[in-house]
Amino acid sequence: MKDEIALLATVTLLGVLLQAYFSLQVIYARRAFRVSPPLTTGPPGFERVYRAQVNCSEYFPLFLAALWVAGIYFHEGAAALCGLVYLFARFRYFHSYERSAELRLAPMYQSAGALWLLIALGALGLLSHFLPAPLRAALLGWLRTLLPWA
Amino acid sequence: MKDEIALLATVTLLGVLLQAYFSLQVIYARRAFRVSPPLTTGPPGFERVYRAQVNCSEYFPLFLAALWVAGIYFHEGAAALCGLVYLFARFRYFHSYERSAELRLAPMYQSAGALWLLIALGALGLLSHFLPAPLRAALLGWLRTLLPWA
Amino acid sequence: MKDEIALLATVTLLGVLLQAYFSLQVIYARRAFRVSPPLTTGPPGFERVYRAQVNCSEYFPLFLAALWVAGIYFHEGAAALCGLVYLFARFRYFHSYERSAELRLAPMYQSAGALWLLIALGALGLLSHFLPAPLRAALLGWLRTLLPWA
Repeated sequence: MKDEIALLATVTLLGVLLQAYFSLQVIYARRAFRVSPPLTTGPPGFERVYRAQVNCSEYFPLFLAALWVAGIYFHEGAAALCGLVYLFARFRYFHSYERSAELRLAPMYQSAGALWLLIALGALGLLSHFLPAPLRAALLGWLRTLLPWA
Repeated sequence: MKDEIALLATVTLLGVLLQAYFSLQVIYARRAFRVSPPLTTGPPGFERVYRAQVNCSEYFPLFLAALWVAGIYFHEGAAALCGLVYLFARFRYFHSYERSAELRLAPMYQSAGALWLLIALGALGLLSHFLPAPLRAALLGWLRTLLPWA
Repeated sequence: MKDEIALLATVTLLGVLLQAYFSLQVIYARRAFRVSPPLTTGPPGFERVYRAQVNCSEYFPLFLAALWVAGIYFHEGAAALCGLVYLFARFRYFHSYERSAELRLAPMYQSAGALWLLIALGALGLLSHFLPAPLRAALLGWLRTLLPWA
């Protein structure tokens, strides 16, 4: 089992590190803008950093769930790669949002795209898992003509 | 392994889709009520949609964790069924909360019931896993008289 | 598979129970301080309980992810033990924060320590998994001299 999920586990741990990094940024922003817990409102500069972290935290469980379903039922390497794209987009989202609410949009759409791709790959993988064997073979054959590198 | 968790993975992916749907509803509510990020306060109609989504997000990791423990250590089909009940209750919770804070209570209790059932099934499954073999056989026999369809 | 993850599943379920307990505390605080949903602001006593729960919820997915990676790739028992330390620190964090924002710091650092340890163990386990066999043997030998009880 360990061999088939090692890439997923690696991307998962990278994601945990990224979320921990975002949490530290909120702590630094609390100091810089003098916003003490339990307050979460303050200058717009603080609120943007705080909202960026909250948004990334809300999506993190969705990301992990889609990553693992896609990685187990579709293709581990493809899912791990999408996962890296997602995490990199989230990193850019966080630092863009820090600068302005407007700038967050482009990396936000990119991270959403990576997440939807993971969901689609997971759905495709599960569909092929539940299909009777002849239909599954036909589906896989069709996918291979679409994605010759898979 | 894939065969024993396919139903759990399917319910997980449905849950991710439901959470993504809730996030989209918040985006629509932001537009309808003209509440731009990073603000999260505004007219009560917006705040109810926002709170509904935050509450569902907070419980999502608890739901997934209980679903998988119950599905692996108790019974996959029973856990997946509870999971569907939970997700449907959350869907009704979200749209009831959108209309009024009072209306959210009935589906909230239903989703809590499904979650507690998953926790109980998981605890029972783990208990039977750790029991010595003769005690486990006695517990399983007793469960079978209670739940003849299991 | 079930035998190699039963301790991780047990700690996971304990974590779900702890989070459910925190959610109940927020409901009681809402009643005590008369703060009705969807409001999340109110007297400092309510806001501290609310923030404590939100903070624990945000970290819960990170905790579960690090617990499972460390438990699968490093050592199940060691990860489960760190997990118990983390959950106990979070319990103390919650009730300390309830009393004052100052008091939350000591258990917060303790929970962060347990989480960083899980992340480090997971990274070490994955590193040794990806290393070529001779390097892995050397790393394991070195770890055994450091941790003779492992």
